Amino acid sequence: MNDALRAALHRAAAHQHRFESRFAAHFAALADPAAGGPELPPTGRFPARALELVRELSLRGGKRLRVALLHEAAALVTGEAVPGLDDAAISVELLHTHGLIHDDLIDDAPLRRGGPSTYYAYRREFPDRPDTALALAVLAGDLAAFLSVRVLLTGELPPARALAMAAVHADAGATTVAGQLLDLERDFDPAPDTRLLHTVTEYKSTRYSVLAPLRLGLLAAGADLAPYDADLRAYATAVGTANQLHDDWLDLFGDPATLDKSPGSDIRAGRRSYAVSALLSAADEAERTLLDTALGNPDCTDDTLDRIRTLARAHGIDRALQRDAAQHADRAAALAADWHGRWRPEAVAFFEHLPAWSVTRDR
Amino acid sequence: MNDALRAALHRAAAHQHRFESRFAAHFAALADPAAGGPELPPTGRFPARALELVRELSLRGGKRLRVALLHEAAALVTGEAVPGLDDAAISVELLHTHGLIHDDLIDDAPLRRGGPSTYYAYRREFPDRPDTALALAVLAGDLAAFLSVRVLLTGELPPARALAMAAVHADAGATTVAGQLLDLERDFDPAPDTRLLHTVTEYKSTRYSVLAPLRLGLLAAGADLAPYDADLRAYATAVGTANQLHDDWLDLFGDPATLDKSPGSDIRAGRRSYAVSALLSAADEAERTLLDTALGNPDCTDDTLDRIRTLARAHGIDRALQRDAAQHADRAAALAADWHGRWRPEAVAFFEHLPAWSVTRDR
Repeated sequence: MNDALRAALHRAAAHQHRFESRFAAHFAALADPAAGGPELPPTGRFPARALELVRELSLRGGKRLRVALLHEAAALVTGEAVPGLDDAAISVELLHTHGLIHDDLIDDAPLRRGGPSTYYAYRREFPDRPDTALALAVLAGDLAAFLSVRVLLTGELPPARALAMAAVHADAGATTVAGQLLDLERDFDPAPDTRLLHTVTEYKSTRYSVLAPLRLGLLAAGADLAPYDADLRAYATAVGTANQLHDDWLDLFGDPATLDKSPGSDIRAGRRSYAVSALLSAADEAERTLLDTALGNPDCTDDTLDRIRTLARAHGIDRALQRDAAQHADRAAALAADWHGRWRPEAVAFFEHLPAWSVTRDR
Repeated sequence: MNDALRAALHRAAAHQHRFESRFAAHFAALADPAAGGPELPPTGRFPARALELVRELSLRGGKRLRVALLHEAAALVTGEAVPGLDDAAISVELLHTHGLIHDDLIDDAPLRRGGPSTYYAYRREFPDRPDTALALAVLAGDLAAFLSVRVLLTGELPPARALAMAAVHADAGATTVAGQLLDLERDFDPAPDTRLLHTVTEYKSTRYSVLAPLRLGLLAAGADLAPYDADLRAYATAVGTANQLHDDWLDLFGDPATLDKSPGSDIRAGRRSYAVSALLSAADEAERTLLDTALGNPDCTDDTLDRIRTLARAHGIDRALQRDAAQHADRAAALAADWHGRWRPEAVAFFEHLPAWSVTRDR
C-alpha cells in the first residue's frame, strides 16, 4: 500500500468516526426548535417515538461509505476544511434511513443493522394492530425524507451552493424511488436480463450512494460539476455495479461468521439478484423445481440453501460473479487513475482503491 | 360585496384556473430530463405508472385553495407579477398529493377526488398481490414527496430566495408528518380534549395548507418574514381551525347532494373529529352503545348514521360546531383587518373574506 492511499484511508476513517458524534448531535438539535429543529407538535408520544426510531436506526451505523465518499470528493479539489460537508453527510445518511424504513416495510423484513426494523419495532409495540404499525412505519419513513432535505437548506453554505446541493439531493431521492419501483418490477420478471439488473443497481443504489456523495462533495468544495459529470457517472456506475455484484455474491457464498446478515436472504425474499438471476438462467428443469421451492419462501431451510449453493458452484456462478465484479472494479479504478493531473493525488488514491476494496470485503 | 373583494376573488379564480394548465405542463416536462426532469430509469413500466398515478391524482383537482393563498400572499406586498409563484404552487400541491397517497393507504380509503385512491388503483391492477399494491403506493407517495421539494430547487428565483422557500417547504413537510402521527395517536384517545384536536388540526393541515402558502407567497415577493411570522401563524391557526370545524360539521350534517364525499366518513373511519369527539363527550351510556357500534365500522348503515345525527342535534352539537367555527373565522377576519395600512388593501380583502367563506361553503 502506498503512502497516499494509507493517508487517504486514515482520513476516511477519521471522517467516518467523527461523523457519528455529529449525527447524534444533529438529532439532539432536531428536538429543539430553538436550535433550528423543525416545528414539531408540543405534545404527543407518536411524533416523538417516530423521531426516536429514525434516530436509532440512523445511529446504528452501517459502513458509512457515503460519508467517506463525500469527504474524499471534496478532497479531490481542496486540502482545506470544507463547510457544509457534515450537513451533506447527515442529509445523505437520512435519505438512506428513509429508504431503509420503507424498504423494510415493503419487504416485511424484521431485522436491520443488528436490531429490529422500524416496522417491526412498531409491530412489537402494537401486536394487535398491524395496520397501525404499518401506518407508523410509513410516516416515520416520510419524516426521515423531509428531515434529510431540510438539513441542506438550513446550514451556513452560500445560498447558490446550498441550492445546487439540495437539487442533487432531491434528484437522488426521486431517482432512487424510481429504482425501487424498477426493483419491484424486476421481481415479476421470470428471468431478468443483465441489462435490467444493471439498471436497477444504478437507479436503486448507485445514484444516491455513490454519485450523489461525489456530486455533493465537489459542490461543497466549490467545484463546477458540468465538466466532470459524465466522468463521475461512469465511475459511480462501475464501482456501484462491482459493489452490488459482490453484495449478491456475499449473500449466497459469503462466510456467515463475518456477514452481518444471514446468508440466502435474496433467495428467501425471492429477490432477482445477480446471483439468483444467474441461477434461473443456468438451471435445468429439475434444478428449477428445487429453486422454485426456495425462491420467495422465508421458511426455506438451510439444507435447501446448501443444495442451491452447491448447484450454483457446479454452474460456475460463484466464479462468474467474482469475475464480473472484478471487471467492473478494474474499470472503475482505471477511470479514477485518469483523474491524476486534474485532481489532488491524495484523494484520487482513495477512489482508485475503493473498487478493489468493494469486491474483496467480507461483509 | 365590495369592489376590492370582488377583484380579489376574480384574481384568485384566474390564478386557480391558470394553475391547472401549468401543473399539467409540469408533469409533461417531468418525463423529459432534457426539459429539466429528474433522471428516471430509461426503462420500466412501474416507475412510469407511479408517475402517471401521481399526475392523475394531482390533476384531478380539489379546491386549489393553497394556490389562491400563495398568489394573494404575494399580492399583499406587490401588484407586479412575481416569478416563482407557479413553482411554489406546484410544490405545495405535490406535497398535498404525497400526503393524500400515504393517508389513503393508511386509512385503506378506496376513493379520492372522485376517482380511485392510488392504493386502490394499484389494488385493482394487482388483485392477487395486496403486498405489491401496498409497496407501490408507498413508493408513489415517496416519489411525490421528492418531486414536491425538487420544483423549488430547479427554478429561476434568486438562490437565497429559493433556498428560504425550500426550507419553509421541507419544514412544512416534516411538521405535517408529525401532525399525521399525532392524528393517529388521537384516535387511540377515548375522548380527546379540544386542545389536542386543535393541535392536530394545526400540525396536520393548517401548517402546510395555510401557513406554508402564506410564507411562500411573501418570500417569493421578496418580503422578509421575520417581522410578520407571529401574525401569519395566528391568522393561519384561526382560519385553519375554522375550516376544520366546518369540514367536520359538513361530514356529519352536510347536504349529501352538494358534498363531494359520502357523509359520515369520520364516524365510519373511527376518526376523532371535532364532531365525533363532541358526541363522545355528550353521550350517555345508551347513546355510547349506539356510537360504539358505528365508530370505526365501515359497514355502519345510513340508518344508524341518521340516528346518530339526530342524537347529535339533540345535544346541540351541530349548533356548537357552527358557533365555534364562526368564532375562529371572526378572529381570523379581525386579524386580517389589522393588515390594512401595512399591506395592499386589494389582497387584504381576500384574507378578510376567506374565513367567512371557509365556514359557509357547502362542500
